[in-house]
Amino acid sequence: MSLPFSLIEAIVGRENFLKSPEELHCYSFDASRMRSVPEGVAFPADAAQISALVKLANTHRFAVYPRGAASGMVGACLPRGGLTIVTNRLNRIVEIDGDNMTATVEPGVITGEFQKAVAQYGLFYPPDPASLAFSTLGGNVAMCSGGPRAVKYGVTRDYLLGLEMVLPTGEIIRTGTRTMKGVVGYDMTRLMVGSEGTLGIFTSILVRLIPAPQSVRTLTAAFPTLESSVEAICAILKARIIPSTIELMDQATLCAVENHLHIGLPVEAEAMVLLEVDGPEIVLEGEAARVEEVCRAAGATRTEAARSEEERSRLWQARRSISPALGRIRPGKLNEDVTVPRTRIPELVRSIRTLAKKHDLTIVCFGHAGDGNIHTNIMFDTQDEGERRRAAKAVEELFGIVLALQGTISGEHGVGIAKSPFIEQEVGKEGLEAMRRIKKALDPLNIMNPGKMFVPDRTFLDG
Amino acid sequence: MSLPFSLIEAIVGRENFLKSPEELHCYSFDASRMRSVPEGVAFPADAAQISALVKLANTHRFAVYPRGAASGMVGACLPRGGLTIVTNRLNRIVEIDGDNMTATVEPGVITGEFQKAVAQYGLFYPPDPASLAFSTLGGNVAMCSGGPRAVKYGVTRDYLLGLEMVLPTGEIIRTGTRTMKGVVGYDMTRLMVGSEGTLGIFTSILVRLIPAPQSVRTLTAAFPTLESSVEAICAILKARIIPSTIELMDQATLCAVENHLHIGLPVEAEAMVLLEVDGPEIVLEGEAARVEEVCRAAGATRTEAARSEEERSRLWQARRSISPALGRIRPGKLNEDVTVPRTRIPELVRSIRTLAKKHDLTIVCFGHAGDGNIHTNIMFDTQDEGERRRAAKAVEELFGIVLALQGTISGEHGVGIAKSPFIEQEVGKEGLEAMRRIKKALDPLNIMNPGKMFVPDRTFLDG
Repeated sequence: MSLPFSLIEAIVGRENFLKSPEELHCYSFDASRMRSVPEGVAFPADAAQISALVKLANTHRFAVYPRGAASGMVGACLPRGGLTIVTNRLNRIVEIDGDNMTATVEPGVITGEFQKAVAQYGLFYPPDPASLAFSTLGGNVAMCSGGPRAVKYGVTRDYLLGLEMVLPTGEIIRTGTRTMKGVVGYDMTRLMVGSEGTLGIFTSILVRLIPAPQSVRTLTAAFPTLESSVEAICAILKARIIPSTIELMDQATLCAVENHLHIGLPVEAEAMVLLEVDGPEIVLEGEAARVEEVCRAAGATRTEAARSEEERSRLWQARRSISPALGRIRPGKLNEDVTVPRTRIPELVRSIRTLAKKHDLTIVCFGHAGDGNIHTNIMFDTQDEGERRRAAKAVEELFGIVLALQGTISGEHGVGIAKSPFIEQEVGKEGLEAMRRIKKALDPLNIMNPGKMFVPDRTFLDG
Repeated sequence: MSLPFSLIEAIVGRENFLKSPEELHCYSFDASRMRSVPEGVAFPADAAQISALVKLANTHRFAVYPRGAASGMVGACLPRGGLTIVTNRLNRIVEIDGDNMTATVEPGVITGEFQKAVAQYGLFYPPDPASLAFSTLGGNVAMCSGGPRAVKYGVTRDYLLGLEMVLPTGEIIRTGTRTMKGVVGYDMTRLMVGSEGTLGIFTSILVRLIPAPQSVRTLTAAFPTLESSVEAICAILKARIIPSTIELMDQATLCAVENHLHIGLPVEAEAMVLLEVDGPEIVLEGEAARVEEVCRAAGATRTEAARSEEERSRLWQARRSISPALGRIRPGKLNEDVTVPRTRIPELVRSIRTLAKKHDLTIVCFGHAGDGNIHTNIMFDTQDEGERRRAAKAVEELFGIVLALQGTISGEHGVGIAKSPFIEQEVGKEGLEAMRRIKKALDPLNIMNPGKMFVPDRTFLDG
């Protein structure tokens, strides 16, 4: 059915509602390659307006699609008709409590700006998704965003203490506590992290903060074999050093970046690892030296340590240039954020090489090796129908490989539309049914972000 | 209805089923003061048997009550007739994976024994509930156990990666991933932590481990005022030092322990704080000195640092002797694990003093000040009906005070039966209704641990 335009405008104001085709078009995509147009886009001012919109959706039976900065990779915020609810007007940092090391923010606050704000208190909010310059904290909570620092600091889930939210039936509830400890009732807060906009719209977010690390050291190490790189990573952790970042680039990635930049990367190496350690200055010198030593003992042929911010930036250059470098290989890519126990990384990357040969595709692997989160980029020519099909087939086989290695098909991007055909493979029929029952209990009319996660709707994928 | 004894015996074997009154009596209590007798007690061997028992419960409509070591404080495992299912035969440490720093355990493994086992790998499982010498990991997950180390290391929730479990409808599902990152579907793992046996029976538990800290330093500081002790705690955290333990004893506690032990405790102080820092040896000397300095700057009148394991043990003596010392004041106590943001601790303790005067009771406060978790012990004579009633009234008022201070009525004990009359005060009517809907979705016949958490059943309390 079509939206009750005037009732929606009565809630948010005419100036906060879009309905013209040109305007709606702007809200038809996210960072996936899928598109779908809403019937209307509302920009509510607060929890009360969101609650009123959701209640209206229940009485008039239209779907609502929560949307933050739309930087998601799996189409989780894409509408299918219905009403898109954008939370970017709720963008205040309500409180930073330095003594209790907590902060209360609204969902539209930009992740990176929040990090800068807490830094002024000597505090640190670690989750660092690649999109942090424009992603919102509401979106980060909805997707349980990760990032390179997860190996030491964990993901969004690990910093969330509580929420104010609008349930799919329109009630406003508060969950969680202002303290690390709190065991009163079910953990609704953590049920909501990663619920991808299907169980509620967040209107206030309470997070914990930690003291900012005093200093950081960066180094790179090139390894002749994948196995030796992973051996080094395990040995570093065993030496009680938890680097804040352990990024791995496989040979295909190194070659792609070197072809792009010509900066003398070790293209003969099977893997290059970029490591950072952070903490008190007094331990860093020793830790950095020990990391280098462990890498060499594991067979690293070349190590480089940054002695200045400028050198650090140079060491990061290769890692940061991967995306533009890949664009030169093929215009299209399927970027899968598969994750395996870190000791299984060599098996994963070797299986992926075999997969690439089998389907005559270029596949490059890089990512957060410390937590086994390997971004697998299957390159294809968007104009070449055969290559597209082979890439899609390779993804399906990749997921089978990952699950056989006791991994997960998504470490940080989520399910949304892109991975909904595959979720049952990972969580099982009964597991999926339990999730569906929770969805139905909280959203009996299936009003909130329908067609996602549990519904393998391939029509989007071909869109 | 009465239990189908022979069908239960057919599942677990006659030797693993108890039904005589004498035997049942042994399973009628936990660490709360409440009692209630089951109709039968089964000791299943594995997930398949638990699944069969739960399916039988659904077809024959009897209640099942999961039970670990029964060390819980709120009656969460107490039966009301029905079948108690004890998980202590599932007691294997299935795997400790040193390279990936994970472990798979069965629910009946004793927390302390598991910690010793991982220590042999140089690894560390931080959650340290006071009952760790006999509590089980299954119970810890069900209750989301905390402990003194939470201020630095978090609680059970923060170490849980995945579960194998039997749903209230009998299906066996697997949740979570072997990796820090994993965002496929709802976070069923964290929904289950702290669900108090109402949403499932765990049959396998996957946890992450961290490297064991190299060393530890212990010190105590006595403060003339509560405010100065909390000021010191905030200043230590601001100095980027996160102690692994910050235990506070208020004046009433100090007096009680001193009367018991006569070891020269500073009874004139309003608060004594016991602090531990752990980590690399190279930073500890400096950190311990800095902690002492900060305490003195905040007004500490007396500080003591342990230079040996023997001295450390001496410093812990007062903290460890609180329970026996309290027993000398009054035979009965209501031990409430309320938690407030740490800056509100002085207000909390002062309000509690007023409360004690008002109701003519002795109330002693001690506990985990770093995370604001203050164990509030309302002492009473079990034979004195008037004192009992006044104590119960004081608890109700205490919860009001705590919620007004933006705290939670339970930081680590949970709701169970003891706190079920008060849960709505904290989570709100709509919040509670959302939890009830989840319970109903996963347990439509209300088979699993009924009468707990959401059901303010005062008949238990008077039992």
